[in-house]
Amino acid sequence: MNLPPAPLIRPFEETDWPRLWPLLRATFAAGDTYAYAPASSESEIHRAWVEAPRATLVAAGPAGELLGTYFIKPNQPGLGSHVCNCGYVVAPAAQGRGIASAMCRHSQALAIELGYRAMQFNLVVATNERAVRLWQHLGFTVAGRLPGAYAHASLGYVDGLVMYKTLVP
Amino acid sequence: MNLPPAPLIRPFEETDWPRLWPLLRATFAAGDTYAYAPASSESEIHRAWVEAPRATLVAAGPAGELLGTYFIKPNQPGLGSHVCNCGYVVAPAAQGRGIASAMCRHSQALAIELGYRAMQFNLVVATNERAVRLWQHLGFTVAGRLPGAYAHASLGYVDGLVMYKTLVP
Repeated sequence: MNLPPAPLIRPFEETDWPRLWPLLRATFAAGDTYAYAPASSESEIHRAWVEAPRATLVAAGPAGELLGTYFIKPNQPGLGSHVCNCGYVVAPAAQGRGIASAMCRHSQALAIELGYRAMQFNLVVATNERAVRLWQHLGFTVAGRLPGAYAHASLGYVDGLVMYKTLVP
Repeated sequence: MNLPPAPLIRPFEETDWPRLWPLLRATFAAGDTYAYAPASSESEIHRAWVEAPRATLVAAGPAGELLGTYFIKPNQPGLGSHVCNCGYVVAPAAQGRGIASAMCRHSQALAIELGYRAMQFNLVVATNERAVRLWQHLGFTVAGRLPGAYAHASLGYVDGLVMYKTLVP
């Protein structure tokens, strides 16, 4: 088997933004995985993906090409801030190469390092079966189902899933 | 039966804040119902309870006394913004008079008027059994359980519940 090399996952730098923004824009414009409004502005998404989180990272290929990105942040303030929330986006050209899996494993290790005790995804689109299966494979359970909580761009109202993993028992 | 009169539920005005802030401060300082850090500053709570939400309301008694307050806001951006989130606080002196119930019913009607299709509570503290029962009585179901998601001030890590109600089928 000729596996591609594992991606380098490193902290985001502002010089990444000119490549990151088109990837995020296209992902959210599709309206099938994330809640961010499909027509969100560049500054709104910069705030959400880069400024608001505790950390933002990128996955880079051997030639420095952008393969993906993720953020990590507390899911709630204060007494809920020991549970983190992450979001992941993989570049279309890098799909199927284990980038999401590598980023999620990386984020779990980083979460523990940062002192988080659990990780929660608040609105996994139920029709995004590939993502649901991947998160389950990586140790998350479906903690809850939210009927019609996601306004899918082509399918209309579909269920959202709350997925959760305890990192520090 | 000599029931107290139903509270007047009206929009918050800034002149309410000097009475509202001590109530919110004491509620969050207890560290047993809300995630807001117990030592949150006045400006942080003003932002969270008054500025960030779509609307903030107060429940007033016959003499104008503050009985409670609630806010309503979208629970997610964009494609999740048809689901609202509310938070309710009842003044200690007004406990047991149906104020929370009145505010929750009011908020459900307001939610529909504002175009929301469902209401979600993200972190109902599982040990707050009175609240859980009340929300169930008012039509919410426990959509999910989040192990150890709340750092209770006296009990340590306790479960959080995600509660959900479809308002517009």
